[in-house]
Amino acid sequence: MGKALIIGAGGVAGVVVHKCCQVPDVFEEICIASRTVSKCDALKEKLDGGRTKIQTAQVDADNVEELVELINKFQPDIVINVALPYQDLTIMDACLATGVDYVDTANYEPLDEAKFEYSWQWAYRERFEKAGITALLGSGFDPGVTGVFSAHALKHHFDEIHTIDIVDANAGDHGYPFATNFNPEINIREITANGSYFENGEFIETEPLSIKRVYNLPEIGPKDVYLLHHEELESLALNITGIKKIRFWMTFSENYLNHLKVLENVGMTSIEPILFEGKEIAPLQFLKAVLPDPASLGPRTIGKTNIGCIFQGIKDGEEKTYYVYNICDHQECYKEVGSQAISYTTGVPAMIGAMLVMTGKWKNPGVHNIEEFNPDPFMEALNKYGLPWQESFNPELID
Amino acid sequence: MGKALIIGAGGVAGVVVHKCCQVPDVFEEICIASRTVSKCDALKEKLDGGRTKIQTAQVDADNVEELVELINKFQPDIVINVALPYQDLTIMDACLATGVDYVDTANYEPLDEAKFEYSWQWAYRERFEKAGITALLGSGFDPGVTGVFSAHALKHHFDEIHTIDIVDANAGDHGYPFATNFNPEINIREITANGSYFENGEFIETEPLSIKRVYNLPEIGPKDVYLLHHEELESLALNITGIKKIRFWMTFSENYLNHLKVLENVGMTSIEPILFEGKEIAPLQFLKAVLPDPASLGPRTIGKTNIGCIFQGIKDGEEKTYYVYNICDHQECYKEVGSQAISYTTGVPAMIGAMLVMTGKWKNPGVHNIEEFNPDPFMEALNKYGLPWQESFNPELID
Repeated sequence: MGKALIIGAGGVAGVVVHKCCQVPDVFEEICIASRTVSKCDALKEKLDGGRTKIQTAQVDADNVEELVELINKFQPDIVINVALPYQDLTIMDACLATGVDYVDTANYEPLDEAKFEYSWQWAYRERFEKAGITALLGSGFDPGVTGVFSAHALKHHFDEIHTIDIVDANAGDHGYPFATNFNPEINIREITANGSYFENGEFIETEPLSIKRVYNLPEIGPKDVYLLHHEELESLALNITGIKKIRFWMTFSENYLNHLKVLENVGMTSIEPILFEGKEIAPLQFLKAVLPDPASLGPRTIGKTNIGCIFQGIKDGEEKTYYVYNICDHQECYKEVGSQAISYTTGVPAMIGAMLVMTGKWKNPGVHNIEEFNPDPFMEALNKYGLPWQESFNPELID
Repeated sequence: MGKALIIGAGGVAGVVVHKCCQVPDVFEEICIASRTVSKCDALKEKLDGGRTKIQTAQVDADNVEELVELINKFQPDIVINVALPYQDLTIMDACLATGVDYVDTANYEPLDEAKFEYSWQWAYRERFEKAGITALLGSGFDPGVTGVFSAHALKHHFDEIHTIDIVDANAGDHGYPFATNFNPEINIREITANGSYFENGEFIETEPLSIKRVYNLPEIGPKDVYLLHHEELESLALNITGIKKIRFWMTFSENYLNHLKVLENVGMTSIEPILFEGKEIAPLQFLKAVLPDPASLGPRTIGKTNIGCIFQGIKDGEEKTYYVYNICDHQECYKEVGSQAISYTTGVPAMIGAMLVMTGKWKNPGVHNIEEFNPDPFMEALNKYGLPWQESFNPELID
């Protein structure tokens, strides 16, 4: 079928590469490119020998010229961006310059501010349309599958959707009293940032972690979830016609919040350097060195994630609730692709999104969020490629 | 009257120096000696100009020869040891060699193990007797005033004491979410060590922090207290005839315990160095650098301590309860001597003990714990020198 250029060589990229190699009819050839080519080579080594041909390349994703050169050389049909969110725009520029389709998993963020919004990427709409190329934004799990679930619910279960509650629950246990899946600074920022939700045409800000629910979730049981802002709220508010309210909920255990709070209290999460034995050291950097290496969590994490959407609305004049979700098992993911569920649930949808664009099913010149496309082939692919979904009409809200 | 050599220049030593200068008829001359003579000089500078003459000296308290030389030169009537517990034995050796009386505030601890017991110091008994000199052990608050309270209770309130509950409560607030008064490693050791109490002739070990009570204490209100081992249990068990049970209780707030636990969980209290940017750094050392400097707590600590003993026993054939305690206000201490109540409550009894030995009231050749002496002059001095005691016959145990 064709060729995909995968930019990035982290946990999610590893999953994307694994999954592309499972669909060699579509991904005949891939190139894995990142700043550190040795990481790309390590991935190639693991997966080489199947029907998908793999090559690697060194590229600085901040540098449009380098990206253009690599694209011109490899001649991919699509660029799968699983690099850093700071690099979305340079990669989109390179796609525009070379006329290649684009897919990513998270919206652009400026390097110097925590600002999650699509404005920068939506500003490319006309240029992508004119160039006749497709940009598929946010094809991870959340954003990503959550948008597909929304389009699916609207197409098959409702005449009008009034509320969407996205519930992202991780019941994984790595056996440490405390560890973070990624940079603890980002974790801290997440729990200390204001939340927000969409209601009746506007976004309403909430105090950090001030709104809490307890859901009894299939296969993982009762979980505390907290209202956070999340990027898909912005696009769903525009694309799900008639929507009145959208909220995003994420699990944080009391233990986890307590550890983060204490570390913040004593100053260990500060990025302001202190003078220690004549050397400037940021406490957060030292904390990261003391905490378990996130890469070490994969093999030891057990348990499951449950991410899904609860919809309420009207069908045939009657009120209706519909819940669709995926359960993902950390250990099974690790066995399959060497990463636990956090990377897996992001990497699989990135492959699926790329596949649908490459096969023409989702070809649509312009810059689009995932819920703008026909959800049916994506829903089918989820079941086929490792993220089967289940549905229920009665999710239990305990508190 | 005479001369006292004060060894040590830390927080407690500062209080001892201040209080000696308030009793110039007894302490006509003092010498403040420590490894860092600049600290001694700073104390001298603060207090010079009163009737007590002050000199300073450099001495390594681990070195018996240096101590002997200093004692021979200064010719004190007593040595007040407010150095480190590791240095009790070298200082006692120097007192023996020079025939000078000795007083300290905490029992000897070997440098390499956390073992609180009097065996090492009690082994000096015969030698002190033969030399005709007095060693007064543990003349701080606890041990110290708690032993005096016990002797007082036995002398004036009971025919037999059956149980003693020592309750050490600090309701001070320094306004930080978390800070330690001293080395956090010692704090950690304290809360992770097994507790123990004395009952019917033997010591019974308990799991760390496994026994908790809530006392409603005069002037500070309801406080969580936990059973710990404490050194005075060993001597009181021997010296209070007929005693059946002795327990030591100390306040730890939930917040304090939670912070310590989290810091321990993540490895920040470990003394095992990690490699950080090519340098070996013990996490605990880095944590200490991040936490507020204990010296900075004094001026900002408000609130009170309440330390006392609850006695139960028999008087004139009837069961009786008697509670005697001292309330100490952090801010008032700071105003008076530049230290908060933790140092104050230890330093004042050290001065009083030294005074009673110097004036001959407590002269008794040998090595003695504080409860072996007549408590009356000490109880009188407590009221006069800043640690007035109060009594009640109905302490409230809430839980």
